[in-house]
Amino acid sequence: MDIIVLKPSATEEDIRHIVKKLESRGLRVNISEGTERTVIGVIGDTSKIAEEEEDAIRVMPGVEDVMRILKPYKLASREFKAEDTTINVRGNIIGGKKIQVIAGPCAVENRTMLMSIAEKVRDAGASFLRGGAFKPRTSPYSFQGLGEEGLKYLAEARERTGLPVVTELMDPRDIEVILKYADIVQIGARNMQNFRLLLEVGTRDKPVLLKRSFSATIKEWLMAAEYIMSRGNQNVILCERGIRTFETATRNTLDLSAVPLLKQLTHLPVIVDPSHGAGKWDLVAPMSKAAVAAGADGLLIEVHINPEEALSDGEQSMKPAAFKKLMEELKPIAAAVGREI
Amino acid sequence: MDIIVLKPSATEEDIRHIVKKLESRGLRVNISEGTERTVIGVIGDTSKIAEEEEDAIRVMPGVEDVMRILKPYKLASREFKAEDTTINVRGNIIGGKKIQVIAGPCAVENRTMLMSIAEKVRDAGASFLRGGAFKPRTSPYSFQGLGEEGLKYLAEARERTGLPVVTELMDPRDIEVILKYADIVQIGARNMQNFRLLLEVGTRDKPVLLKRSFSATIKEWLMAAEYIMSRGNQNVILCERGIRTFETATRNTLDLSAVPLLKQLTHLPVIVDPSHGAGKWDLVAPMSKAAVAAGADGLLIEVHINPEEALSDGEQSMKPAAFKKLMEELKPIAAAVGREI
Amino acid sequence: MDIIVLKPSATEEDIRHIVKKLESRGLRVNISEGTERTVIGVIGDTSKIAEEEEDAIRVMPGVEDVMRILKPYKLASREFKAEDTTINVRGNIIGGKKIQVIAGPCAVENRTMLMSIAEKVRDAGASFLRGGAFKPRTSPYSFQGLGEEGLKYLAEARERTGLPVVTELMDPRDIEVILKYADIVQIGARNMQNFRLLLEVGTRDKPVLLKRSFSATIKEWLMAAEYIMSRGNQNVILCERGIRTFETATRNTLDLSAVPLLKQLTHLPVIVDPSHGAGKWDLVAPMSKAAVAAGADGLLIEVHINPEEALSDGEQSMKPAAFKKLMEELKPIAAAVGREI
Amino acid sequence: MDIIVLKPSATEEDIRHIVKKLESRGLRVNISEGTERTVIGVIGDTSKIAEEEEDAIRVMPGVEDVMRILKPYKLASREFKAEDTTINVRGNIIGGKKIQVIAGPCAVENRTMLMSIAEKVRDAGASFLRGGAFKPRTSPYSFQGLGEEGLKYLAEARERTGLPVVTELMDPRDIEVILKYADIVQIGARNMQNFRLLLEVGTRDKPVLLKRSFSATIKEWLMAAEYIMSRGNQNVILCERGIRTFETATRNTLDLSAVPLLKQLTHLPVIVDPSHGAGKWDLVAPMSKAAVAAGADGLLIEVHINPEEALSDGEQSMKPAAFKKLMEELKPIAAAVGREI
Repeated sequence: MDIIVLKPSATEEDIRHIVKKLESRGLRVNISEGTERTVIGVIGDTSKIAEEEEDAIRVMPGVEDVMRILKPYKLASREFKAEDTTINVRGNIIGGKKIQVIAGPCAVENRTMLMSIAEKVRDAGASFLRGGAFKPRTSPYSFQGLGEEGLKYLAEARERTGLPVVTELMDPRDIEVILKYADIVQIGARNMQNFRLLLEVGTRDKPVLLKRSFSATIKEWLMAAEYIMSRGNQNVILCERGIRTFETATRNTLDLSAVPLLKQLTHLPVIVDPSHGAGKWDLVAPMSKAAVAAGADGLLIEVHINPEEALSDGEQSMKPAAFKKLMEELKPIAAAVGREI
Repeated sequence: MDIIVLKPSATEEDIRHIVKKLESRGLRVNISEGTERTVIGVIGDTSKIAEEEEDAIRVMPGVEDVMRILKPYKLASREFKAEDTTINVRGNIIGGKKIQVIAGPCAVENRTMLMSIAEKVRDAGASFLRGGAFKPRTSPYSFQGLGEEGLKYLAEARERTGLPVVTELMDPRDIEVILKYADIVQIGARNMQNFRLLLEVGTRDKPVLLKRSFSATIKEWLMAAEYIMSRGNQNVILCERGIRTFETATRNTLDLSAVPLLKQLTHLPVIVDPSHGAGKWDLVAPMSKAAVAAGADGLLIEVHINPEEALSDGEQSMKPAAFKKLMEELKPIAAAVGREI
Repeated sequence: MDIIVLKPSATEEDIRHIVKKLESRGLRVNISEGTERTVIGVIGDTSKIAEEEEDAIRVMPGVEDVMRILKPYKLASREFKAEDTTINVRGNIIGGKKIQVIAGPCAVENRTMLMSIAEKVRDAGASFLRGGAFKPRTSPYSFQGLGEEGLKYLAEARERTGLPVVTELMDPRDIEVILKYADIVQIGARNMQNFRLLLEVGTRDKPVLLKRSFSATIKEWLMAAEYIMSRGNQNVILCERGIRTFETATRNTLDLSAVPLLKQLTHLPVIVDPSHGAGKWDLVAPMSKAAVAAGADGLLIEVHINPEEALSDGEQSMKPAAFKKLMEELKPIAAAVGREI
Repeated sequence: MDIIVLKPSATEEDIRHIVKKLESRGLRVNISEGTERTVIGVIGDTSKIAEEEEDAIRVMPGVEDVMRILKPYKLASREFKAEDTTINVRGNIIGGKKIQVIAGPCAVENRTMLMSIAEKVRDAGASFLRGGAFKPRTSPYSFQGLGEEGLKYLAEARERTGLPVVTELMDPRDIEVILKYADIVQIGARNMQNFRLLLEVGTRDKPVLLKRSFSATIKEWLMAAEYIMSRGNQNVILCERGIRTFETATRNTLDLSAVPLLKQLTHLPVIVDPSHGAGKWDLVAPMSKAAVAAGADGLLIEVHINPEEALSDGEQSMKPAAFKKLMEELKPIAAAVGREI
């Protein structure tokens, strides 16, 4: 249902014109005359009215505003599916009682480094290994990733450690090679509204980790999930990683209130990436604890053997020892909110 | 120390002109010629160079940019004072091991209501009572507070419950009446840069709870604390309450990463107001837990007997039963981060 | 009129409870059952329902959302008063055909400097002189203004040049001294929601130049104007001066689209301050031209004899020669939009 | 050149460690000891130090901050190329004296509509025809464009009217089909950091219209241009289209101060899209005038025969008659800033 607010100057003819248009789409109307405004309630399945049509109604003579009452996403909504979605990846359940920790380097830089990190994060208690083979970099002069070679190392690390692999897809042309190696396909923040990429992963059944764009509202983020789900793939994991605000003391502003809010709005699992959110390694531990306390289903944490030598995001990477300590410290907090880690 | 970056087109004369100006203020310079830019390092106590002078240097011929290396605040900085500041209010230590919870209604609406809430929050474990007698309201047609009558009720509630009182000062003309009744003077978010108000509380010794403006950077917030401290009053408590971002699903975006960051930058206690931050009562509990996990020294929580009848901020107020439950749930989280509540 | 959207789970009893509450305030309701949501239209003068009551309705059982249809401001709205408000200050009409230019230094620094600038901006075609005697400064260590001495110099400059004087009020305790000297009282951006200050100028009849807070929405800005007007003073001039965004290349982001939008929403005159908006003197000329082309009724421009020596805002001040050139260049643009300058 | 600021606690060994690392990359250092901080100036071509290495330096023991002095883009900078870039598209010069107007519908909806709009905008004085064949839509349920059929209509409209065609590329897999029909390839705001797309258009010689992401800083936008240029294609046109801010009264906040600022920073042509910036058709005319007055090299304007029936962006589309009137009104403003239209 939508609400159309009329201008005080709207004429009888304006109203007839609007009503006729709505009825031609199979919708019914309820006209309510107030003392200062007349309002048209649109009854029927207005989810069929796409945003462009809302705009079209907004420019009709006599119309002051159009207010949408229903959410523009459906499959992703808690209303459509009340129970929590859980996603089973090689036996690890995301969205269940256990908080899942995905750890690893920002980019796969070389084989030795990756094997070493993978073993260390597994020993510390991580359940998944992350690492980028294709890297979206703001500078054309920065390291762009190892490509398929990096994916092979990830697969080798999975064999060694048993940790399933999360890695990013940046280009629809890479979908096959990514699917060949990854257990979860990551859609990065900059690609959250790369609709062709969303449609591509939507037609496969591999779980998708959908990062929030640093400039996306929660509604737009859920619409991006809806894009994927509308094509068939219901295995979407949402990942909060900080939004862009006026504050420059941190790289982004981690929006932790999104976690409990999403738990109301959607049935999808919600995890938090405190490394990108804060952008400083010494904020990662407190923000990880806060994320778990706020109800997150998991964490995505950058860990690097030697951040000084990292080819990307060194500033926000933890060393393995700090990561191990954090994993210990998270246990009583997880327990305090009825979870385990 | 400041760094002055010169344009590639800067002349010898430009440089002499800049150096002369700096030397006239008792500063020394270190000129360093790079391959693409020449840079002037300014040596000496540049904290004497106020921001306006930086601007003045920026418009001198040949200057491309001026970068400030030292923080513009001093008394508030961790560098100036390494150990944590603790503030003792009638025996309750803010900034110590115990997490202090300040609870109560947004506005003092009437005597009966206030007494009832005060008792309930005390029983649930709060250490301070909050309540506004003078209210900053965005609409001139909204309830503006009971004034001194409200302050008297607060004092009466303190006598009954033993809870010290936190209340807001909005106008320098009200300072005496506020000081007569309050244990902690709150400077609201909209007045964080009301410099006359800051100077007024700076000359007294009553502790000040300084809320972050929803549009202030952390640096500006610490500068506001510096305003107060520069006049003598060192008893400043910082309170994060959410910043304005593009996201509209929550009233503000609670910036919890500010908490661990402030613990690095300043020695002042840091508390969190999850009620204003989230703007929805059902987000207050998870965000309170997250704040404690992130390292906050206290919480400021709106509690109302009957939010449906509240004359302000009903949407973000908890009922006493929910508050009591939250206080219980916070205990293991406080313990997990080495605190008590 | 307001629209209350009910949850799918709302019961008959929930609805009765809400309706009873509304009827107790003298309002009527129109219940409209859609296929997916039931909606309650509230009929009657809902401007009597303050924001706090909206919040109270929002927490009632069964309520999903409350949407306000009428604007929360009335006296400031174009609907309430269709014709443009014009303000006559010593014969200079603000809001009429002529674009009024207010020029002068950020702060009054000394007598000689002020007299010199006043004469130069008058000769270049400015109609008003600006200058601050009380300065809101983000650092307690910065120049805070000359106080009443500065006001006396402004009055002397007015006598010499015939230019009426615009100066800022920061503290309600200064109202009498400001009124004694000023022709227009400026409320600065940081005080746009200093409600006590707004009420103070609202009870006088001196014109008020109300700057937009850098974090205020247009609605909040018009509510601040409403505060002043609700107390009797209808002579409010709105001044856009840039909003805070993520962009740091300019000091603020000048929101010029606010100008034509305000012309639709309100009858009050709208001027633009490109000096604070851009924060760099070499952007002031193009942004002044853009402001006039967008429909502004006036400009507020910082002019300083010697920006290198300015005690504040040197970086954004024009020199008199550049200002004179700009005044010439603005003429054909004013003519192109049917105005004169 | 970069500046490394050391912590007061930095040791001699820390300094040696940093210096050794820098020298191993062929850079020289200049150590300057101030009274409160020691600073290391890095001399040499630091453009070889990518952002990731800056991060790596930032985590080295003893380092407080790293400040970059040189801009991270080179080919796009005014410093690298002082004279304005002009781009000749079938005889129409973008970036020259004439302000180029690109007009047409948001999406190509059908053949008849497109031919009619194309003729009307040509008659009104537009120099280019715009229209989307592939549409990035926030909802999976919205009209996604006609695909190649739409491109064929655009080519037919070009033949009829002589107007070169601007259309958007969304997917690297569509590059060949787009190049077959388009005269200028548009990279939409949501794809400004779709680096694979940027590299794709970078290796061709077709002019690229690069829209600013609504969340991109000017620096990031120029880095995106650098991506394209670094691959060989120097024909990049920048298009400001509004940024996301807290203000919701307009769809985006059109950042017109970006225009004169970009004229300082880069040699590339800068055009403005007031339709997306404002999001309301009745703000398009004043904002177009403001853009020209601010120094824009062109305008991108949505025009639709019947906005009520538009399948996208109806709210921000002008009708042909309004567009024709605007083109007339722009003439004296263009003349006032030394341009023609």
